[in-house]
Amino acid sequence: MGHGRLTLDGFADTMHAFVYFAPAMKTGTAQKIGIQQYIDDVCRRARAAAGVIARLPEDTRNRALRNMADRVEENRDAILAANAEDMERGKEIRLTGALLDRLELNPQRVAAMAEGCRQVADLPDPVGEMTAFRERPSGIRVGRMRVPLGVIGIIFESRPNVTIDAASLCFKSGNAAILRGGSEAIHSNLAIAACIHQGLRDAELGEDCIQVIETTDREAVGALITASEYVDIIIPRGGRGLIERISAEARVPVIRHLEGICHVYIDGDADLGKGIEVAYNAKARRYGICGAMETLLVSRPVAEEVLPELARRYGEKGIELRGCEVSRRIVPHMQAATEDDWTTEYLDAMLSIKVVDGLDEAITHINHYGSHHTDSIITENREHADRFLREVDSSSVMLNASTQFADGFEYGLGAEIGISTDKLHVRGPVGLEGLTTQKYVVIGDGTVRP
Amino acid sequence: MGHGRLTLDGFADTMHAFVYFAPAMKTGTAQKIGIQQYIDDVCRRARAAAGVIARLPEDTRNRALRNMADRVEENRDAILAANAEDMERGKEIRLTGALLDRLELNPQRVAAMAEGCRQVADLPDPVGEMTAFRERPSGIRVGRMRVPLGVIGIIFESRPNVTIDAASLCFKSGNAAILRGGSEAIHSNLAIAACIHQGLRDAELGEDCIQVIETTDREAVGALITASEYVDIIIPRGGRGLIERISAEARVPVIRHLEGICHVYIDGDADLGKGIEVAYNAKARRYGICGAMETLLVSRPVAEEVLPELARRYGEKGIELRGCEVSRRIVPHMQAATEDDWTTEYLDAMLSIKVVDGLDEAITHINHYGSHHTDSIITENREHADRFLREVDSSSVMLNASTQFADGFEYGLGAEIGISTDKLHVRGPVGLEGLTTQKYVVIGDGTVRP
Repeated sequence: MGHGRLTLDGFADTMHAFVYFAPAMKTGTAQKIGIQQYIDDVCRRARAAAGVIARLPEDTRNRALRNMADRVEENRDAILAANAEDMERGKEIRLTGALLDRLELNPQRVAAMAEGCRQVADLPDPVGEMTAFRERPSGIRVGRMRVPLGVIGIIFESRPNVTIDAASLCFKSGNAAILRGGSEAIHSNLAIAACIHQGLRDAELGEDCIQVIETTDREAVGALITASEYVDIIIPRGGRGLIERISAEARVPVIRHLEGICHVYIDGDADLGKGIEVAYNAKARRYGICGAMETLLVSRPVAEEVLPELARRYGEKGIELRGCEVSRRIVPHMQAATEDDWTTEYLDAMLSIKVVDGLDEAITHINHYGSHHTDSIITENREHADRFLREVDSSSVMLNASTQFADGFEYGLGAEIGISTDKLHVRGPVGLEGLTTQKYVVIGDGTVRP
Repeated sequence: MGHGRLTLDGFADTMHAFVYFAPAMKTGTAQKIGIQQYIDDVCRRARAAAGVIARLPEDTRNRALRNMADRVEENRDAILAANAEDMERGKEIRLTGALLDRLELNPQRVAAMAEGCRQVADLPDPVGEMTAFRERPSGIRVGRMRVPLGVIGIIFESRPNVTIDAASLCFKSGNAAILRGGSEAIHSNLAIAACIHQGLRDAELGEDCIQVIETTDREAVGALITASEYVDIIIPRGGRGLIERISAEARVPVIRHLEGICHVYIDGDADLGKGIEVAYNAKARRYGICGAMETLLVSRPVAEEVLPELARRYGEKGIELRGCEVSRRIVPHMQAATEDDWTTEYLDAMLSIKVVDGLDEAITHINHYGSHHTDSIITENREHADRFLREVDSSSVMLNASTQFADGFEYGLGAEIGISTDKLHVRGPVGLEGLTTQKYVVIGDGTVRP
């Protein structure tokens, strides 16, 4: 998410408390009536709310989103105080530095959450968009109308900003949202939820439009992902473990955002200057995003020309290289890559390198070892480019561009809720359109079928 | 499927045998190596074939389809002989008349299968279609390319024509197909499969492009719908029981085609002449299709004007009516409708009728009791029409048109593989486009992300 691209350089600067749903009490409610019944109730209310949201005019939805942004800004100190509680507990239970980084909010991050919410309000409304009607020989006219999916369940890990990012995208596209964040972030999430609910009430809307699950019990996830009568889609955001567990147990359709084992292939007909710039950027610009290159493939005839220069630049940046046998003859100081390296998403200052015979081997390697996320070819050969773009089975295929561009904002979607590595419904960055569906509209004039 | 719209008025007129895969032998193979291993092998071969088909030029795919059509025509007598075996066995095991009707082939039906296959060859190729590229501020250009889904599994019941209908649609759209027909039709299906395979070989393509599962063991279905490593999507075609069982057990995404509990609502502002014509056609034209109206809703102020006339016409056609209390005061000879009637897909000469207070009650009734398939409003009131089209949560919503139009051919898709009542990926009639997906294509010129 673009508005989550801030550096984590601050910490709660105040501890002023704000009255929000006391999680203990609400969790108590869930415990009392039982988790299954609590989630049933949440889902049922979401379904009813979905019918209302689908009918709301665009300006009502946008007004509510701007209200939420205002409430987040006004309650910044309370959100930071709640986050400080989560951070304290996170340190107690010895979360890793990376997890604490994701969990932490600061004034800039809170401001970015509000700003992101306003940006979503400013996006064009996908709901109600009609395709052109075609007149059929029978006399009927047939078109399609874009409508919300209905109820969307989002299951995410520790980043608290996802609460409002995901909520705003679901709501803007006319859907009811049920959000289940990581237990480490429960105080932060509930403080943000209070702002969301106040924003909804200010627009005279019910809180059921956006519900945050208030229990950290894992049973709640199981109940949510099997509530196929009420929930239209589940979008898990998190690591491979989370997503695989959810995919295995869900009865509701899941849009998966799996890891990105992304490749750059420098073809024999590449402009080598472009190849070096793109291959460097694709790895070195940022390690921790799913569009970062994890394996570099180089065509044999140009390997000796590009690998030494690239190895030097990666080395300066402190990136560890693991190479195939041929590439190690060219750059001897590399470690040997094992079979595991071709299927590992490092998300770190590491890169595997393989010299291939040419285009065919590159495509075969990518389709076999990759994760169907984002892969790029560097070439000036039109035929090679066409074949790569057509035959590489990934959600994004690129020509002479860095895989780090794989992002909803960069693609012009305005925002993204994740990057789908699934093929059905939506593939690649998922924006507002991915949270909608199209129904057929048929117009006649008392027309009957012969 | 349009090319299945023939009357079932003939029977195999010859018993001449044609050499095709002997099912006993092949089933024996599956038994010997075990069903799970047999299906694994089928799926693995389909995955490999999918990579080949995705690269085939359009004219090769079309030539193979026309070959298949020729082989079906040439082997008509053999297909009818195989079908006669299935029919004989079907009578022995006392299949219902309706099932025998579906199972039965005749010369016209075989001709229609071949003709349908040629029609699919003539359709525009969906594969490779590009959306317009948009230039982004970063300098990259972003567009989308339509590509095949990959491997499609089709599970169907007794109609043998589905074998070639489904195979041709999957293949035309660049996918590998795995077909699992009903055990009652195994001889017919394998005879048709032999023609398909001969057609593929004539075009110098492998048989793995379109595989028909040669065992009738139920374990094969379980193995197929859980082969998520190899199969991209399962499309079940059949009754509710089949579809629910598959949805419950599948690990591969399923596009469901559930029943059609379709409504016509005659509004208070309807042109009553149109209302009577459409309501009559929607029920009486054909009972057995999923777009047939099952419940008629009439706005109270016009009920006394339209119900007597409609009841007279339905009565002449021999259609049994079941009405709510209010409608029975107007047409006293109707049976009383029970709660069950509002959720029953009769697919027969029966109709339930309810008088409602107006638009709101009509929409609420349809969204509550309907199956989100196809629903129509009859009105001259623009505001009522807009609300109905927007708020009724069905795959097709209609204005002043008969629900019997719900069909891929009528909508201009050229062909359909079914009507999806799901919301994700594809909704309503599923044509070639529904068997494809779009991937992002990004073009740069050595472009790196800042």
